[in-house]
Amino acid sequence: MSKGLLIVVSAPSGCGKGTVLAEVMKEGGFFYSVSATTRSPRQGEKDGENYFFITRERFEELIGSGGMLEYAEYCGNYYGTPLEAVEKKLNEGMDVILEIEVQGAMKVKEKCPDAVLVFILPPALETLRHRLEKRGTESGQVIEKRVSEAYGEISKAYSYDYVIVNDALEDAVSDFLNVIKAEKMTAKRSGELIDKVLGRI
Amino acid sequence: MSKGLLIVVSAPSGCGKGTVLAEVMKEGGFFYSVSATTRSPRQGEKDGENYFFITRERFEELIGSGGMLEYAEYCGNYYGTPLEAVEKKLNEGMDVILEIEVQGAMKVKEKCPDAVLVFILPPALETLRHRLEKRGTESGQVIEKRVSEAYGEISKAYSYDYVIVNDALEDAVSDFLNVIKAEKMTAKRSGELIDKVLGRI
Repeated sequence: MSKGLLIVVSAPSGCGKGTVLAEVMKEGGFFYSVSATTRSPRQGEKDGENYFFITRERFEELIGSGGMLEYAEYCGNYYGTPLEAVEKKLNEGMDVILEIEVQGAMKVKEKCPDAVLVFILPPALETLRHRLEKRGTESGQVIEKRVSEAYGEISKAYSYDYVIVNDALEDAVSDFLNVIKAEKMTAKRSGELIDKVLGRI
Repeated sequence: MSKGLLIVVSAPSGCGKGTVLAEVMKEGGFFYSVSATTRSPRQGEKDGENYFFITRERFEELIGSGGMLEYAEYCGNYYGTPLEAVEKKLNEGMDVILEIEVQGAMKVKEKCPDAVLVFILPPALETLRHRLEKRGTESGQVIEKRVSEAYGEISKAYSYDYVIVNDALEDAVSDFLNVIKAEKMTAKRSGELIDKVLGRI
C-alpha cells in the first residue's frame, strides 16, 4: 500500500480555514493531526480534540527524542506536531492534514520535502478585514494588527505548493480535494504505478 | 488576462489518448494544436484537421526562422508543432494541448519549462497488447513491435509532470481536467493572484 500524503495547511486568521478543513474531513480518508501544547486548556477546549495538553517536561522530552515534527514557542508556551501519530497514519495510507502557521510549515517542508503545502487565501485583504469586523469579537486595534499579520503571512504564500482562495466555501473545499487528487497523479508520486504498468513489480 | 497553459500529452499507441483528448476538447477552453507535416495526406485526412500538409521547403523555412516549437524527421518526412498558433492561443488565455511523442515532449519542456507534461498510461502493458489484438488491424509481429515501443515510451513517463491511467474513459477525462485545474492553483502560477490579494496590483 502506498503512503498517504502529508498535507500542510496555513492561512491567516479569519480566512475560514477551519470551516474549509471541517468540510474536507467529512469526505473521509483524511487524518487531522491534533497539535500538542503546554498552555492550559481554555473553557470548552477538550484534550485530544483541540490540542493534546501536555506538560512542559513531556514536551521537552519529545523535542529531545525527535518526537516533534515541528514546534514553536509563543508567549511562553510550546505548540507542536507530535510525529508518532502522523507517521503511523501516513504508513496506513491515510492523508494527514497539519493545520499550522507559516514558520512551522516551512520547517515541515524542510524535514519532509514530499509534504504538500497548501495556503488558503482570503479573496482580498480587505475581505479579511470585513470578516474580522463582522465577527465583532476584536477591537479595531486588534483587527489592524491581525490584518497586518495577515499581510506578512500571505507574503509567504509564494513559497507554498498551492494557493486556494476561500471565496465560496463549497468551491474552496472542492479546490482542496482537487489539489490532493491531482498531487497523487504527479509522476514523482507515481513511480510504483509506472513500474506496475511496465510489469517490473 | 493570464496566459493559458501549454499542455503536452503523450501516450503509447493504443492507449486511447485520442479518445480521451476528444472528450477533453468537448469541455471547451482548450485549443488543440494541429501538427504540420511534409508527408502526403492519407485517404480521408484533411488539411488543418489531421495535419497541416506543407512542403519540405516551407517546413525548413519555418525551422530556420524558429517557427517550429519542436520537430522531428521520421521515414524521410518532417513532423512538427508550428509555434505561431500556439503562442497566439496561449496569449488569449486558452490552454493549448500538444499531442506529441516523448522526444518532442522533452524538447518542449526544455524550451518552455512552464509546460505541463501529461503521460497517459494503459492500465498494464498487457492491456495494451490485448487492445491492439482486439483492434485487429495489425499483425502479431507489428503488435510485438508496438508493445516493445510502448515499453520504451512508458519508461519515460517518470520524467513527465503527471501520469493518468486510461482504464475507464470517463475517469481518465475527469483526471485530466482535474490535473489542469490543480496545476492552475500551484503557487508558482499564482503570483499575480497573491499580489492581487495583497493589494499590490
